[in-house]
Amino acid sequence: MSRFLRSLPALEWGRAYTRETLMSDGVAALIVTVMLIPQSLAYAMLAGLPPEVGLYASVAPLLLYALFGSSRTLAVGPVAVVSLMTAAALGDLAAAGSPDYWAGAITLAFLSGAMLVLMGLLRLGFLANFLSHPVISGFISASGLIIAASQLKTLLGVEAQGAHLLDLLPALWRALPQVHGLTLAVGLAATVFLFWVRKGLKPLLVGAGMGVRAADLFAKAGPVAAIAVTVALTWALGWQGQGLKIVGTVPQGLPPLTLPSFDLGLWRELAMPALLISIVGFVESVSVGQTLAAKRRQRIEPDQELVALGAGNLGAAFTGGFPVTGGFARSVVNFDAGAQTPAAGVMTAGGILLASLLLTPALYFLPKATLAATIIVAVLSLVDLGALQRTWAYSKSDFAALVSTLGTTLAAGVEAGLIVGVGLSLVLHLLRSSRPHIAVVGLVPGTESFRNVLRHPVRVSPRLVSLRVDESLYFANARSLEDRVNDAVASNPELQHVVLQCSAINDIDTSALESLEAIDQRLREAGIRLHLSEVKGPVMDRLRSTDFLRHLGGEVFLTHYQAVASLTPELLAG
Amino acid sequence: MSRFLRSLPALEWGRAYTRETLMSDGVAALIVTVMLIPQSLAYAMLAGLPPEVGLYASVAPLLLYALFGSSRTLAVGPVAVVSLMTAAALGDLAAAGSPDYWAGAITLAFLSGAMLVLMGLLRLGFLANFLSHPVISGFISASGLIIAASQLKTLLGVEAQGAHLLDLLPALWRALPQVHGLTLAVGLAATVFLFWVRKGLKPLLVGAGMGVRAADLFAKAGPVAAIAVTVALTWALGWQGQGLKIVGTVPQGLPPLTLPSFDLGLWRELAMPALLISIVGFVESVSVGQTLAAKRRQRIEPDQELVALGAGNLGAAFTGGFPVTGGFARSVVNFDAGAQTPAAGVMTAGGILLASLLLTPALYFLPKATLAATIIVAVLSLVDLGALQRTWAYSKSDFAALVSTLGTTLAAGVEAGLIVGVGLSLVLHLLRSSRPHIAVVGLVPGTESFRNVLRHPVRVSPRLVSLRVDESLYFANARSLEDRVNDAVASNPELQHVVLQCSAINDIDTSALESLEAIDQRLREAGIRLHLSEVKGPVMDRLRSTDFLRHLGGEVFLTHYQAVASLTPELLAG
Repeated sequence: MSRFLRSLPALEWGRAYTRETLMSDGVAALIVTVMLIPQSLAYAMLAGLPPEVGLYASVAPLLLYALFGSSRTLAVGPVAVVSLMTAAALGDLAAAGSPDYWAGAITLAFLSGAMLVLMGLLRLGFLANFLSHPVISGFISASGLIIAASQLKTLLGVEAQGAHLLDLLPALWRALPQVHGLTLAVGLAATVFLFWVRKGLKPLLVGAGMGVRAADLFAKAGPVAAIAVTVALTWALGWQGQGLKIVGTVPQGLPPLTLPSFDLGLWRELAMPALLISIVGFVESVSVGQTLAAKRRQRIEPDQELVALGAGNLGAAFTGGFPVTGGFARSVVNFDAGAQTPAAGVMTAGGILLASLLLTPALYFLPKATLAATIIVAVLSLVDLGALQRTWAYSKSDFAALVSTLGTTLAAGVEAGLIVGVGLSLVLHLLRSSRPHIAVVGLVPGTESFRNVLRHPVRVSPRLVSLRVDESLYFANARSLEDRVNDAVASNPELQHVVLQCSAINDIDTSALESLEAIDQRLREAGIRLHLSEVKGPVMDRLRSTDFLRHLGGEVFLTHYQAVASLTPELLAG
Repeated sequence: MSRFLRSLPALEWGRAYTRETLMSDGVAALIVTVMLIPQSLAYAMLAGLPPEVGLYASVAPLLLYALFGSSRTLAVGPVAVVSLMTAAALGDLAAAGSPDYWAGAITLAFLSGAMLVLMGLLRLGFLANFLSHPVISGFISASGLIIAASQLKTLLGVEAQGAHLLDLLPALWRALPQVHGLTLAVGLAATVFLFWVRKGLKPLLVGAGMGVRAADLFAKAGPVAAIAVTVALTWALGWQGQGLKIVGTVPQGLPPLTLPSFDLGLWRELAMPALLISIVGFVESVSVGQTLAAKRRQRIEPDQELVALGAGNLGAAFTGGFPVTGGFARSVVNFDAGAQTPAAGVMTAGGILLASLLLTPALYFLPKATLAATIIVAVLSLVDLGALQRTWAYSKSDFAALVSTLGTTLAAGVEAGLIVGVGLSLVLHLLRSSRPHIAVVGLVPGTESFRNVLRHPVRVSPRLVSLRVDESLYFANARSLEDRVNDAVASNPELQHVVLQCSAINDIDTSALESLEAIDQRLREAGIRLHLSEVKGPVMDRLRSTDFLRHLGGEVFLTHYQAVASLTPELLAG
């Protein structure tokens, strides 16, 4: 226990805490709190939960992350993609907004928290590496499009249901004649205003003499302004009486103490979504954390991050929240506003707590269309269709992974999209590495180097074939090497020596070792000797532990030049 | 069509056919025919089919392989492992020996043939590479044990049923009191005789002045002698009247013309077994074919082999046979007996045809226990438990793949064994390559080479870190590199340069490129420059097609020494 306490990141920064750090942290906390209030409400709505749940999920997780987390500036709470995944996981389970639905969200946070802590303790953080960038990119873009589409009905003031985008869009289209004019006006005005704040306000403020960083932070308060103005107008003009949907009564008070369900049937149903939420949340959080840490030459510990995010989610589960993770926008704001330590997160949690105690009556008149506009503007920045073109130019197989993740997520939902994407990118990687690049090389005249005979004018002998293998040898590519050697033998009747240049071979597994033995034996029976050159130290150590080198028909040379010089000296003389 | 005909291997050897070749092929065909008759009967019995089906399956497949195959000496027909897989696939479908069961075997041969031809036309031969050697080794050993155990009941003369080894062995144990003495005596005598022929006869013959090769071939006729002697004794002493089970009436005549079932429900049920039979059969056949071809500096074409084996199986399906592939023992005998071309196969098919026309009445008194002994002696040579120890010594993860394939095949059957084995070996390979070896390297004093700082006394500067990455960079290992760079930065406060030595990097996928961009950006924000050295040509070409090199904080050096000489000249001077 004492060893565990000593390793708590909180103790490290806590000891060196000063009054200056307190000031920086306090200012950052104030700015982040102002930004988080509308975001928390909006993401709770996106997840299909009452707005106050978003506030609850922003308190305990922040505190627990501050205690366990290894990033100094990461801000944990509800984020768009995880909220969408929560809604997708619970959609078939209960009606959005019902008590069963909320109980499901709490259980989902609990399962995800438990999985994250377990993965952290087992040091399984590397599993997240199997989500490739093209898969993440396709998944996030598709999620952004789905989220934006899901908010359109609120913006239009119509009813439209659809489990997937392909159901939702036609339903929206059919509902178009019922569009509620006032709702659309409020929603559109808020959307246009928020886009302008993002793109137009900052240059204006900078032009008026404000610093670039201050202008940036000021622009982040845009959603608060949109909320304040639309709340005031709705209250003053009685828009809720004209059919504008408002948030209504938000319970005032501390986050409730809650317990997850221990129904094993429910656990089975939520296990897969919880695992995917854990992995996606972890990947998002770690990449934000690493980016911010590196700017100040700090570092984060991925396995410690798993434990901290897990603790955050467990905290959410016991205080009426839903799945959370480290958010990009809020962490960057926290960092830019000068946060030095996780104490900023503690103070932010205090701010949100105050808001949920005091501010909720003011949210009564908040139009839902304003929240929808906040979500749409936030998530459209996630959609990066330019990645399609960039990836196509660089790698066709990565493009295939990106497009199929994007397409499957849009057509069949977030879980199917992730599973298809990860599966396909693994299969494509295996196929690529199962066809290794093997070059026939020859001596560059006047040097001791060897180059591909197809690309360079080099010298070769009919008595010797040099093959350079550009990949570690393992079961899926070992037979390619057998084929290449067979080809070389069948097409060179005078052949006496085959030399494998092993400089790029980092590993030889059992299958490849047996292939090498088979090659050696076949060559020997055909009167040809197999030699190796430039074998790496660790590979040589393992080969020495076997019979292979004793049986080998030829020799092992330190450099490829030594091999050629010793076996075909006429090549150097001529 | 004419292009297709020109590419037929048969035309190539057919044109150069001479009287000498005919003599060699004829002698080989005679010897292989004598060896194949008992084998065909035994493997049909193992597959749960009437004995004549084994003869049928040895005619058309041999002819079709002779036409399409690229190996000069491969002999195609029923083999032990594929017969076991056939029995496993049909076991739940119908009672062994029933007409429905035979119809299922015909359909299985048809599906497997169609899949093989399709894989050949689509050039998917490389898929077989995903069966690693440890998985094949574990699978073949387990199959040998299962086959031997399945023949024990025939050898003991008892009734015992069991779908898996774990059911069968207790059933055999319970049946022990009912052992039939005469059956056991015949079976044991045959077994001991066959083992002695394998191990003891050859040295005896060689000692008596016979050539080694002739002694080898003579010993292969052991099963024929065992059959002749036990048939004669049973006939003369009326053993069938004392409860010894005999083969009984074997229909005399040509193989029948048959049609596979076109019932889609049956196809669905047999699709997975047919695929596994195709892949296992192809792997077995290709490895035999390659070994024999290499001995005469010939080569085989894996995709052509798929077509030829597929044609063989389709031939089996239309002539009352069951799934076949290239067999190890018969192909080696064919080769050693001097076969020069597939015409030997054509003549062998003729020999088997004659046997099924004329010889079947002589098989009436053949004891089933003799066939069981033939099978047991043949398959126990497949069991290679020494592979466990050799693999353990060389690679723990390959050992895990071998043991789990062996264990799962024994406990849950051939399909489960293969699937678990392939799945596990892929996962273990991915895990291994997701943790690449990355070494911090330093300058070996007085040279231009760099070595791992942990293994060698080298010179390093606090201003520069050199990292050598010993693996291609792709999504699963890209973040490891980010971690290592972050570590280096966090632990070297004076750091100004990070140089990646890229000599072992054969590929950089999109994810790894983005990781490199992230590393470069983070380093730049911390006031550190990222450099590359020894980038391979193809990798450099792809990097040039992106923005990466334009944004790169540092430079790309041809050699690592140039990088260090230019960035930290004090290291060379000191």
